Amino acid sequence: MMERRLLLVSNSTAYGGSFLDHCQPHIGQVKRVLFVPYALHDRDKYTQAVRAKFSTLGYEVDGIHEASDPVAAVRKAEGIFIGGGNTFRLLKSLYDNEVVSEIRRRVLEDGMPYMGSSAGTNVATVSICTTNDMPIVRPPTFAAIGLVPFNINPHYLDPDPKSRHMGETREQRIAQYHEEADTPPVLGLREGSLLLVEGDKATLQGSTGARLFTRGAGKDVDEHNPRNN
Amino acid sequence: MMERRLLLVSNSTAYGGSFLDHCQPHIGQVKRVLFVPYALHDRDKYTQAVRAKFSTLGYEVDGIHEASDPVAAVRKAEGIFIGGGNTFRLLKSLYDNEVVSEIRRRVLEDGMPYMGSSAGTNVATVSICTTNDMPIVRPPTFAAIGLVPFNINPHYLDPDPKSRHMGETREQRIAQYHEEADTPPVLGLREGSLLLVEGDKATLQGSTGARLFTRGAGKDVDEHNPRNN
Ligand SMILES: [Ca+2]
Ligand SMILES: [Ca+2]
Repeated sequence: MMERRLLLVSNSTAYGGSFLDHCQPHIGQVKRVLFVPYALHDRDKYTQAVRAKFSTLGYEVDGIHEASDPVAAVRKAEGIFIGGGNTFRLLKSLYDNEVVSEIRRRVLEDGMPYMGSSAGTNVATVSICTTNDMPIVRPPTFAAIGLVPFNINPHYLDPDPKSRHMGETREQRIAQYHEEADTPPVLGLREGSLLLVEGDKATLQGSTGARLFTRGAGKDVDEHNPRNN
Repeated sequence: MMERRLLLVSNSTAYGGSFLDHCQPHIGQVKRVLFVPYALHDRDKYTQAVRAKFSTLGYEVDGIHEASDPVAAVRKAEGIFIGGGNTFRLLKSLYDNEVVSEIRRRVLEDGMPYMGSSAGTNVATVSICTTNDMPIVRPPTFAAIGLVPFNINPHYLDPDPKSRHMGETREQRIAQYHEEADTPPVLGLREGSLLLVEGDKATLQGSTGARLFTRGAGKDVDEHNPRNN
């Protein structure tokens, strides 16, 4: 059994290159990446953009939607990258294409490197219950791939004391989640932050840090920065 | 069959009094309001706050969670007010307590006045697919009470050209919703706006206006203000 290896990014796809560079020492030669564009409506266009970006870094990209058998595509992938967009649409498509358990198996048993950005980060966790996205479609469950034992809130925003907006702050929304029974910790990952998971070790990277919210801890929130994991 | 009569508020509960005042000429004497506190975890505390507020206006408030038979409470209510909080929690509780169809019947057939704020506005529409809330629990369906033939996005925020935040704007989120088939129009109701529905007529009130997004209309969004319905 190989160690899991994930890079979970708060925002965009910009870290694709550095992720692969980072993994290179551990995983040997990854030359092809399986890209999952399910979070956006136009899968071809999304894949094209990622392919163009990755090719400048020397990687080839296969779009999972281009494969006749998506499960087989996961089975033979060297590494996987799940892009951002709408989290509900993404999770529903992962279930519709029946790839959830095969991705889990490949990451947890084979150590296939996993990179997620935004929605692709949400689906790597316990559930999508702490996404910021609109529920535009309904997946068969909110349970996600479950590659780490906590949830993430990507694009985490600190409360703004000057704001006059009356919607809940991100902190209040996460507190409402923790009012429900048996809810896992939630890592509020600010834009510019990324979480590197190697086996049972999680390391925060980037410059903006993160906040860890735990059920029952009340206002006692752990601030994390890259030097203080 | 009586005409439906709804007041759908973007944000807080502050309009409770004016709603009832407005309805008074049409509905005769409403003395008691059935309050639905399901969107917040602490139902007693929420009901207490609403009761205190409404009593200063001369109305009595019954909490639906205080009734041994919530369906019977809806059946005999003179008017109903569904408060804000988390939309998923609210809709799940409405289904768990089996009051969805009775509320629909009372509003559409008996003309029982309905007031909703925020999450209580979301559940009055076709579906909760355009809520801003986190999916902290999973209702059996996203279909809502269906008192109007469109969706609402409460707390609507215009795109901020100065923002460096990389999450989707509200406009982009609604556009993603409209990429899905057979999705109804979405009214982006800014804070400070409220929609009064009387029979088949909807009138925008308040000072901030609203935007109407229609599937397939692309960038062609209708701006509405209280003088231009
Ligand atoms: Ca998103
Ligand atoms: Ca809310």
